Amino acid sequence: MPDFSIGVDLGGTNLRIAAVSGEGQLLEKVTLGTKVALGRDHVIDEMCDAIQRLSEKYRATGKFLGAGIGVPGIIDMQTGMLRKSANLPGWADYPVRAEIERRLGLLKNVARVVLENDANVAALGEQWLGAARGVLNMAVVTLGTGIGGGIVLGGKIWHGMNGMAGEFGHVTLEPEGHPCGCGNRGCAEQYASASAIVRMARESIASGQAPSLAKAASSDAEFGAESIYNLAIQGDEHARRIFRSFGRYLGILLSDLINVLNLDMFVIGGGVSSAWDAYAPNMFEELRERSLVYAATAPTDPLRSDLLGKEEGASAQTESLTERKTIITCALLGSDAGLFGAARVAVPAS
Amino acid sequence: MPDFSIGVDLGGTNLRIAAVSGEGQLLEKVTLGTKVALGRDHVIDEMCDAIQRLSEKYRATGKFLGAGIGVPGIIDMQTGMLRKSANLPGWADYPVRAEIERRLGLLKNVARVVLENDANVAALGEQWLGAARGVLNMAVVTLGTGIGGGIVLGGKIWHGMNGMAGEFGHVTLEPEGHPCGCGNRGCAEQYASASAIVRMARESIASGQAPSLAKAASSDAEFGAESIYNLAIQGDEHARRIFRSFGRYLGILLSDLINVLNLDMFVIGGGVSSAWDAYAPNMFEELRERSLVYAATAPTDPLRSDLLGKEEGASAQTESLTERKTIITCALLGSDAGLFGAARVAVPAS
Repeated sequence: MPDFSIGVDLGGTNLRIAAVSGEGQLLEKVTLGTKVALGRDHVIDEMCDAIQRLSEKYRATGKFLGAGIGVPGIIDMQTGMLRKSANLPGWADYPVRAEIERRLGLLKNVARVVLENDANVAALGEQWLGAARGVLNMAVVTLGTGIGGGIVLGGKIWHGMNGMAGEFGHVTLEPEGHPCGCGNRGCAEQYASASAIVRMARESIASGQAPSLAKAASSDAEFGAESIYNLAIQGDEHARRIFRSFGRYLGILLSDLINVLNLDMFVIGGGVSSAWDAYAPNMFEELRERSLVYAATAPTDPLRSDLLGKEEGASAQTESLTERKTIITCALLGSDAGLFGAARVAVPAS
Repeated sequence: MPDFSIGVDLGGTNLRIAAVSGEGQLLEKVTLGTKVALGRDHVIDEMCDAIQRLSEKYRATGKFLGAGIGVPGIIDMQTGMLRKSANLPGWADYPVRAEIERRLGLLKNVARVVLENDANVAALGEQWLGAARGVLNMAVVTLGTGIGGGIVLGGKIWHGMNGMAGEFGHVTLEPEGHPCGCGNRGCAEQYASASAIVRMARESIASGQAPSLAKAASSDAEFGAESIYNLAIQGDEHARRIFRSFGRYLGILLSDLINVLNLDMFVIGGGVSSAWDAYAPNMFEELRERSLVYAATAPTDPLRSDLLGKEEGASAQTESLTERKTIITCALLGSDAGLFGAARVAVPAS
């Protein structure tokens, strides 16, 4: 009977809880609407009830190793407090881990509770069970409304000095570029995120040069990155141009990260990552030009490196160093990456 | 009597060899002109003679732990071969480590020979005995003709997948910027190196707008970054503008590195680093604007962070996480950093 841990994905809209075996098998997954408006005590009560129920149910099959909670925001790893979170207002400087531990205190077998950043657990999830399975050194770049990032070194999340490593979205790509919500200018997430796609479309529409985009925007109440992608794959030149620019900037960001870190693999996740065919050619073009390391180790057919990744990642450790390749590939686990990664952080290192 | 190791700095012009005790005390340093033109066998013979002489001399005082060789170029850590080196023509794909081991085979007590990149050993030297003493996670940015880099994580050199981590000089700062020797455009070393300073000065002179620079260039046979720095500290506005631009781009590079890695300390080394007073104000201005992490943890008086660094680095591990600061500081060991770091890599991890 397998030992198991519980992973929690505490988002701004959903609260998801999963029991996962130590070997990475999903035992059960529960999705609850997080009523953030009802306050943090309510959310934590709901979460702890679910952890308690799942842990009791599966304790018959194996040892309960602990619970990992993926949270959007900056976490003080030492104290288990949430220092800052845009999606969980009112949670800052609240002792989240201590409150969970207190409520779960009734469970005699709880090994530990670990609070972790959501991008970090997503990276660990992909490394454990997804696109980077078996790859010890990798990072995930999450393309959503903004750009998130998580780094795994030697199979463990790299936190940096105070849990703020992996802020890929705020790498400067254009020193005099678009203003960013962070107060800076020209940040990566102003050029290679869902918001960036919509901004570029709005700019094209405002210029009066993109009637197809204008028509889509006025007829589609949910006009967004996905609508623009659909136009792009139908061959609309204005939409395609937006994704070319997106791919170019994503390629510059990845080149920078590769030149600095020389990791084995970069996994592209988040909602926009699936528009791969629209942005990947320009992304790889920049990578070949801007990254010494990528150029020196590029897979022979970069456009298929999503496929190559799966094969080569697994065998990377047995290859000679000079034959190893920098792999850029799509995430495999979608939103479950964070859930699996959260379950994984709860497992004590063997 | 202390155990000791030997560090070698194999540059394009000098060959320096030092015996260093396990506690970091310099026992003896030898500087030889490397006659690179006489071929690699000659250089390695000279190096091995010196290693042999020093190791025999100090073996009376303690155990000889091994020799570390800092080399400019890309090294295959597994095979101990130099894969590529601009400064050591003819050494590529030559089994450097094996050749040294063969020659030193006569020495019964040689624990090991380690070949390591020169920027990496410089980083380790500063971490062991210099500006970042006691700081486990740090990087060195070396400002010379180009920009070099070395990363130390958990007290050990971070090599990445194939020894190419820390290529800070080729991070893109201006996507459509100046062409770089690497084939790319807008690389950091085109904006924040000694060559960049001279290029900017030549551009100012060519524009006819900088008579003071033109005069210095025509009267000074060795006109270079140092002459321009001397003009800047004398108040010459054209020279000062060059260092302001230099500081701005160095600040952007450091912001990117901090946002990605969240390291405790960045040490600025290399010849140009000593022009600190001319570039630091603009560097810190960019850091405060562009790095979330730096802004959140900035020392109260950033212009004095070179001094702060020395004090706070040492005590960083005892401070609470939220109180820890990202320190940007000047290197302390100059060209000896690489020599000490090379001696350090030869010491087996305890």
